[in-house]
Amino acid sequence: MELRVDVITLAVPDLDEANRYYVDALGWTPAFQVPGEVTFLWAGTGRLVGLFGRDDLAKDIGIDDPPPFDLGRNCNSPEEVDEVVAAMRDAGATVLKEPQRPAFFDGRHAYVRTPEGTVWEITYNPGFAVDDNGIRQING
Amino acid sequence: MELRVDVITLAVPDLDEANRYYVDALGWTPAFQVPGEVTFLWAGTGRLVGLFGRDDLAKDIGIDDPPPFDLGRNCNSPEEVDEVVAAMRDAGATVLKEPQRPAFFDGRHAYVRTPEGTVWEITYNPGFAVDDNGIRQING
Repeated sequence: MELRVDVITLAVPDLDEANRYYVDALGWTPAFQVPGEVTFLWAGTGRLVGLFGRDDLAKDIGIDDPPPFDLGRNCNSPEEVDEVVAAMRDAGATVLKEPQRPAFFDGRHAYVRTPEGTVWEITYNPGFAVDDNGIRQING
Repeated sequence: MELRVDVITLAVPDLDEANRYYVDALGWTPAFQVPGEVTFLWAGTGRLVGLFGRDDLAKDIGIDDPPPFDLGRNCNSPEEVDEVVAAMRDAGATVLKEPQRPAFFDGRHAYVRTPEGTVWEITYNPGFAVDDNGIRQING
């Protein structure tokens, strides 16, 4: 199984404050933004940094104590989400949220915690076109 | 200033345990490894996941309480390290370690904490060839 990180989601205490630093002060142009909800910033070829509120991440995972960040792997089909999650579980990871339809977008996703404590989001989102270079297009 | 994430360093509690999961169980082939010290795994075009012990990261930054992860930006020259750090500081980030020669490799690096709490390592390492796609070659 190929492992890949397409999105690094920072679980920020305050989305407005994070936008003020990365977008306003540092001048990083958002790739895609839902005001008050999430900001995606290109961080190189085929990779994004996501700014997402801690409370929203906790709700999305379905836990009380959200991680400070998660690593996102984007899949090309709903079936691939299940395959990646199964491979990670077989290798010793804990599934925090079984593959299902996400609340925030159409598609399929799951959250997994690896033994050393990192949370991964495994996602299929038809709004993201994924190829060898990772995510190349966002139909926002 | 272009912002980019080239390396996602996971501050793992136990490097052997992290290697057992990512390398042995999941079958992720290391791009570069210093046994007992650090493991780098390709995570897509021009990007790496680094496994690095929490205690070693604390020592490298020079703080007692290390972050759970850091985001690495690789620069093409020592001067670029200083420029990126200055831009981040001007935008409101806190410099945790001023640009200097690293203990672990030749070159120049610094650690910066952004307002929402993420630690970034800004690095120039002549052993990494950096181009538009990020890191493409490791002369390990």
